[in-house]
Amino acid sequence: MNNLIETLNWRYAAKRMNGNKIPSEKLDVILEAIQLSPSSGGLQPYTVFVIEDQEIKKKIQKVAYMQPQIAESSHLIVFASWTKITAEQVENFINLIAETRGISSDSLNGLKTSLINRISSHTDEANAQWAARQAYIALGHAVVAAASEQIDATPMEGFDADGMDEILGLNEKGLRSVVMMTLGYRDTENDVLAKAKKVRRSHKELFVTI
Amino acid sequence: MNNLIETLNWRYAAKRMNGNKIPSEKLDVILEAIQLSPSSGGLQPYTVFVIEDQEIKKKIQKVAYMQPQIAESSHLIVFASWTKITAEQVENFINLIAETRGISSDSLNGLKTSLINRISSHTDEANAQWAARQAYIALGHAVVAAASEQIDATPMEGFDADGMDEILGLNEKGLRSVVMMTLGYRDTENDVLAKAKKVRRSHKELFVTI
Repeated sequence: MNNLIETLNWRYAAKRMNGNKIPSEKLDVILEAIQLSPSSGGLQPYTVFVIEDQEIKKKIQKVAYMQPQIAESSHLIVFASWTKITAEQVENFINLIAETRGISSDSLNGLKTSLINRISSHTDEANAQWAARQAYIALGHAVVAAASEQIDATPMEGFDADGMDEILGLNEKGLRSVVMMTLGYRDTENDVLAKAKKVRRSHKELFVTI
Repeated sequence: MNNLIETLNWRYAAKRMNGNKIPSEKLDVILEAIQLSPSSGGLQPYTVFVIEDQEIKKKIQKVAYMQPQIAESSHLIVFASWTKITAEQVENFINLIAETRGISSDSLNGLKTSLINRISSHTDEANAQWAARQAYIALGHAVVAAASEQIDATPMEGFDADGMDEILGLNEKGLRSVVMMTLGYRDTENDVLAKAKKVRRSHKELFVTI
């Protein structure tokens, strides 16, 4: 069987973790997979919070139905996407391309105009939804990267976003929390789901081949 | 360097492909990675269209700014998410869990109620946005899986969703197209981006460590 598929079958969303810390080199791989994930236009319209502080994790737990894996995790990753896409952010992005590729910012005026036109043709809310979706691609990358390092990762939407935004001070940063993920090690003994068979819609249900 | 990170650095969103077909066993790995991707509640609220038919690809190209990689791809993958989450879909999901794990559907009544409550506490539009986000996790999985098989994958949002929905008859299926991805092989000679340096926000810009 293909290695990646074996890895993805091994993973599951652990509801209990054992509190053990993950090695920093494994965390680095997961963060780098996030950093390398694609996004529409390449804008990466999000900030990723990497939380090891136990007190902050416990505060977040309180706005997340007291789910135990939060405090039992090694690290909590919170994806917060941009609430508004500003001309300054586009400008920064254009400058980043120019710098990275050693070309002039002026040579990217066409791209800049097309990005700004696209953004201004949508409402702030539509742009925020778009930004949130990009964070989910990064989440998908992170899930695979964690599994490939044999680290358990539990993606979670079950939290009060307003409460989370307050704890992390996101509003004033132009961010809102959209999804999070605990990283750590499954507590096989206490997690009833640790040995449960994976449930997935069948190939026939999920795919249409044309 | 870590293998996965090397792989992710190798990949980029090819804007030109060479028309070569990808082997079916590699396509299978990518589809299985999509099937195994996590989703909120486990509902997998989307259908994935796997399009090899050249005429359909050409029709889609017309509603997607004539981007050449669509017709030049081996396969085009279109992610279409549920426009509405129905009680029947939840029921099917509960039955799938029961069947997979060899337990009674009745033992899952708590989960069923909590899913139905969550869905009915949101507008159809909010549920549709939520469904779309889940498809983006699957997209993230697909991008990594393709790269791990050394297949090029180009995620694309640049298409007219209404036009796409009409071509694939999505409305009547309770679906709407949210994102797509071409699979194939980069055309290094004709793609100006094939040798361009990857642009990503720095670790310092993208991450906040707490």
